Amino acid sequence: MPVVVQNIERAALADIDALAQYGVATIHEAQGRTGLLAAHMRPIYTGAAAAGNAVTVSIPPADNWMIHVAVEQCQPGDIVVIAPTSPSDAGYFGELLATSLAARGVRGVVLEAGCRDIKALSEMKFPVWSRAISAQGTVKETLGDVNLPLSIAGQIVNPGDVVVGDDDGVVIVPRASVKAVVAACKAREEKEAGTRAALASGKLGLDIYSFRDKLKAKGLRYVGSAEEISS
Amino acid sequence: MPVVVQNIERAALADIDALAQYGVATIHEAQGRTGLLAAHMRPIYTGAAAAGNAVTVSIPPADNWMIHVAVEQCQPGDIVVIAPTSPSDAGYFGELLATSLAARGVRGVVLEAGCRDIKALSEMKFPVWSRAISAQGTVKETLGDVNLPLSIAGQIVNPGDVVVGDDDGVVIVPRASVKAVVAACKAREEKEAGTRAALASGKLGLDIYSFRDKLKAKGLRYVGSAEEISS
Amino acid sequence: MPVVVQNIERAALADIDALAQYGVATIHEAQGRTGLLAAHMRPIYTGAAAAGNAVTVSIPPADNWMIHVAVEQCQPGDIVVIAPTSPSDAGYFGELLATSLAARGVRGVVLEAGCRDIKALSEMKFPVWSRAISAQGTVKETLGDVNLPLSIAGQIVNPGDVVVGDDDGVVIVPRASVKAVVAACKAREEKEAGTRAALASGKLGLDIYSFRDKLKAKGLRYVGSAEEISS
Amino acid sequence: MPVVVQNIERAALADIDALAQYGVATIHEAQGRTGLLAAHMRPIYTGAAAAGNAVTVSIPPADNWMIHVAVEQCQPGDIVVIAPTSPSDAGYFGELLATSLAARGVRGVVLEAGCRDIKALSEMKFPVWSRAISAQGTVKETLGDVNLPLSIAGQIVNPGDVVVGDDDGVVIVPRASVKAVVAACKAREEKEAGTRAALASGKLGLDIYSFRDKLKAKGLRYVGSAEEISS
Amino acid sequence: MPVVVQNIERAALADIDALAQYGVATIHEAQGRTGLLAAHMRPIYTGAAAAGNAVTVSIPPADNWMIHVAVEQCQPGDIVVIAPTSPSDAGYFGELLATSLAARGVRGVVLEAGCRDIKALSEMKFPVWSRAISAQGTVKETLGDVNLPLSIAGQIVNPGDVVVGDDDGVVIVPRASVKAVVAACKAREEKEAGTRAALASGKLGLDIYSFRDKLKAKGLRYVGSAEEISS
Amino acid sequence: MPVVVQNIERAALADIDALAQYGVATIHEAQGRTGLLAAHMRPIYTGAAAAGNAVTVSIPPADNWMIHVAVEQCQPGDIVVIAPTSPSDAGYFGELLATSLAARGVRGVVLEAGCRDIKALSEMKFPVWSRAISAQGTVKETLGDVNLPLSIAGQIVNPGDVVVGDDDGVVIVPRASVKAVVAACKAREEKEAGTRAALASGKLGLDIYSFRDKLKAKGLRYVGSAEEISS
Repeated sequence: MPVVVQNIERAALADIDALAQYGVATIHEAQGRTGLLAAHMRPIYTGAAAAGNAVTVSIPPADNWMIHVAVEQCQPGDIVVIAPTSPSDAGYFGELLATSLAARGVRGVVLEAGCRDIKALSEMKFPVWSRAISAQGTVKETLGDVNLPLSIAGQIVNPGDVVVGDDDGVVIVPRASVKAVVAACKAREEKEAGTRAALASGKLGLDIYSFRDKLKAKGLRYVGSAEEISS
Repeated sequence: MPVVVQNIERAALADIDALAQYGVATIHEAQGRTGLLAAHMRPIYTGAAAAGNAVTVSIPPADNWMIHVAVEQCQPGDIVVIAPTSPSDAGYFGELLATSLAARGVRGVVLEAGCRDIKALSEMKFPVWSRAISAQGTVKETLGDVNLPLSIAGQIVNPGDVVVGDDDGVVIVPRASVKAVVAACKAREEKEAGTRAALASGKLGLDIYSFRDKLKAKGLRYVGSAEEISS
Repeated sequence: MPVVVQNIERAALADIDALAQYGVATIHEAQGRTGLLAAHMRPIYTGAAAAGNAVTVSIPPADNWMIHVAVEQCQPGDIVVIAPTSPSDAGYFGELLATSLAARGVRGVVLEAGCRDIKALSEMKFPVWSRAISAQGTVKETLGDVNLPLSIAGQIVNPGDVVVGDDDGVVIVPRASVKAVVAACKAREEKEAGTRAALASGKLGLDIYSFRDKLKAKGLRYVGSAEEISS
Repeated sequence: MPVVVQNIERAALADIDALAQYGVATIHEAQGRTGLLAAHMRPIYTGAAAAGNAVTVSIPPADNWMIHVAVEQCQPGDIVVIAPTSPSDAGYFGELLATSLAARGVRGVVLEAGCRDIKALSEMKFPVWSRAISAQGTVKETLGDVNLPLSIAGQIVNPGDVVVGDDDGVVIVPRASVKAVVAACKAREEKEAGTRAALASGKLGLDIYSFRDKLKAKGLRYVGSAEEISS
Repeated sequence: MPVVVQNIERAALADIDALAQYGVATIHEAQGRTGLLAAHMRPIYTGAAAAGNAVTVSIPPADNWMIHVAVEQCQPGDIVVIAPTSPSDAGYFGELLATSLAARGVRGVVLEAGCRDIKALSEMKFPVWSRAISAQGTVKETLGDVNLPLSIAGQIVNPGDVVVGDDDGVVIVPRASVKAVVAACKAREEKEAGTRAALASGKLGLDIYSFRDKLKAKGLRYVGSAEEISS
Repeated sequence: MPVVVQNIERAALADIDALAQYGVATIHEAQGRTGLLAAHMRPIYTGAAAAGNAVTVSIPPADNWMIHVAVEQCQPGDIVVIAPTSPSDAGYFGELLATSLAARGVRGVVLEAGCRDIKALSEMKFPVWSRAISAQGTVKETLGDVNLPLSIAGQIVNPGDVVVGDDDGVVIVPRASVKAVVAACKAREEKEAGTRAALASGKLGLDIYSFRDKLKAKGLRYVGSAEEISS
């Protein structure tokens, strides 16, 4: 039976904003290479970036009624995460819904389907990550669920999880882990700053990371030319 | 037997230009959610927009000879709509053909195949919607048809139908319907203007569209928290 | 047994730079419509362009260790060409590796997998052509090969072959053919300049290329209207 | 406005049965390499074969209501050809609808979507060609059209056109052309019988089709070994 | 940190076997059109069928080490459900692992990746549903998780959920719902038996389901011929 | 300039037949997880199996002329390996060409495109591995190459390399390595026989392969239930 869960726990916006300064790639690495949505989820414009708490929506194929229901459940700092129950590229989301969400302080949308009104959304700077761009209209006939755990693009998103998106894609951070992931990101960035400087100066990763012995132990063979290989 | 139909009926450019001020999504909705090409048809540059009468071209796989034949059939305000008889991503269309079409006043190309010379076409502001970008050359050996009904990206396009493309994709409007669709777009935009203002002010779609009773009748259940669901 | 070939023959940078002024489409045509990588290899930002000598890397799925090994084999003017031994969209390449390659004068990367840190790479103007954008991290456990012939996106790339990429995609020119292809590009461009001017003036390709007789011989039929077809 | 066209012209069953003895590949060739549906349309079991008159159905995404409407319009010898207005893999068709169609003498279904109840349909020997196999249920909320021209898998199908399917796929023959295509198939088969016997005896196609001079004229070069190529 | 959960609650085998007599399509419908894996999950041989409790495995890309770990956690009547953390078609599963699972009474595998040894698995009648068939070998270097909630092919699978697969695909039934779904399947089958008999006798679904008034109310228009449409 | 290389070195048929008794998966593993064609190359019928020397053919898109040229270059025990220069699903190969090849003792075809006449080829037991099944006809207008190195489905195939295909796909073995790979397959099979027997008796891979210590060292954590994870 379709259900709307009205009260969900959210991460503190201060923690989300601390996380948001790191990019998707860093966050994904910092939490042990987990939580990344599949690569077909692309931003609708270059430079899109957002971070917020997930409000999840499970919708029937080619029916966007429940997104209207979800708007009421949103708070400032949320990101609406939407997946249909059967694969569809239809255009579930466009300018009017974005206007409504923006009025509530919602920061973006992640959508396993099609998005439309690309020009208007780009001008509004309302970021959407979607699997397709399509003007195909949808109906409003069948119910779905708001704020249940959602399977989307290969990940489980729980309501209140933190969602971060940028040009690299979208990553999900479990609500309980946000502070720890911020710390891990900070540590990673600090370490990378030194590595970056060393690499920029021409030092090799082979030496920085001490790879040479390990490569030798695995049996990597260096030859002067291709002719030497079979000799 | 391959054929070129030389005289086709076209919509009036005044009507097309009236239509062109509405986007693809609005037109698609205004004509009853019909006529949209499949979502894989994408503009080759951001902000591409065009509207015109369809000159249709059916071409053999990896052979672009008939596009040269079609140029002669074009008039100012046309859009050339091209599909191969067997799926191909080859680069049937590029700068030289665009130069020739632009010289005749053609406004754009819709191509169920690959497009090349992206940089030059973008600088020329000659819009193309295609399924791929590919420099792969084609031959000029086999005939096809110009100005017969064409199946492309899930739609039937008749010669003289009106084609509108923008960042959201491409929509086809039957020639006989153009005036009616312009009127429907106008009505829709006027209605949406009010809705947009209401949504921007924070009013909910649930209330604007009077969805609450219908949702209740369908059995939507609101719970305070996930724990209540199974209770 | 995994191997690194250390000495490869390269084309002269002067020849590469002469080639680089022509685009991918022209080069592909000028060498007889060969050498084009499949259309799924796309630049990570609009306007990406590069030409250089191929350093080839064969990597295990989801393991980017050998890219670090390949850096040491690179010289100014190289382009690193990378393919996994099993299809993968994981994010093998990002900002740190790009920093290291840029420090060695490498001009770009061609990658049959995922790329990450898109924003940073775009700001660095470090061009990458890849099949996907993905932040998915990779491991460093298994060896591969550097500078062996590589099958990538439907082409064979030999170490030292010349790689040219732009908005249209990527084309491979055999090292021994570079001078000849430059000459063929020059001839083609000169011929196209005249054709372009003629087309821009409104002259038809049908006449410029003398197609009319050939079309007639193949049996192309011109009719006034669709009604005449079955008569 | 959704419409059901009740009276359509059909080809004579005698002509259809004469056509049906030829396979899809022969028919496609005999009518000038036209009419073939795209390769993603696959039979749900090996050995599926059928030929009949098209009853066309245009359906909304994930809604199979109009198939029930179409049943009433079917006659013995028909094949129901179905495409959704927006791409969908949902399971629009299964055992119950097949039972109903079989009771009316319908010979098969062609479906640009998902089919389910594969085991039951295979046991019934009710052939279906579809783009997917999926148990995903559909709703019955939105109208569509029966017996209008339909764009499906890259072809236009008119009501009453002849549809032929086998292990190679599906081909459409315009109703008016059926007798001519039967004759062309017969001629082609007779010619192929001789060619097949010659080829089976070891004679080469190069000689049977007199290709050698044409190949020489196009410039094909025979070398003894790869070493001779650059000499 | 990678983890193996050793004790999970399972559904009773008697309930699973009661469920198993219904096909995937019926079960999916009976539980409200939920739980179906995406259509790319296909059985490796025709007629594959199995039902059991899910043991879930999250594996790194191209690394099948954790499947070996999962074997030890299996009991008779289980089905192992496996998804990589990054998309991969590599061949994670074949005859040796199937031999080991069969020895423990495991009934099948659901795999969001490639399967190999198809001939041997078919002869063993060990059913596998996978997204690809591939002999590509995998490594054993990186840890993953056993018996955590898993996102696979658009669904969330919890350890101990019931998995049912057949020629139509794979459906997941929450452990707590199994008895209720069996009852719903039974009711559905009984109802369908009557419908099937009525349809087989030639009665129309339009009448059986009383669709005519609803269609009329939605505005469906019946015309004698296409010519009447625009009149 | 298109070329036919007439004399190529082949592996001895005795060695090929020794190799053929091992399946694709074993051969791929035995030669270090190399040489496997991408997973989209599928046999046209279940149980297809063949091994032979590669005769390579590079063909233009939708043009199968060069396959006729290649027939003459074939010897008993060959397998013809064909790839178009631009992606195409057209039906390049069918019964007539198969009849001609079978008459020369050719054992099968590997085709990066479409195959047709599936029923006839299955009855002839002429195995083909292809990326698609399609009746789409091709032309005979443009030259290509026979017996040059070929990039196909992610691998380089040299003329005279050994090609092995079965239900799992297709693997390429360099001609010079055949004897060594046979020996490695034999060793692998002998080792696997023991492992298979142990696994069938219920012994765990964890113990047979001594994985437990390595897993522990990598940090795998065993918990009794999910509740223990965060404790």
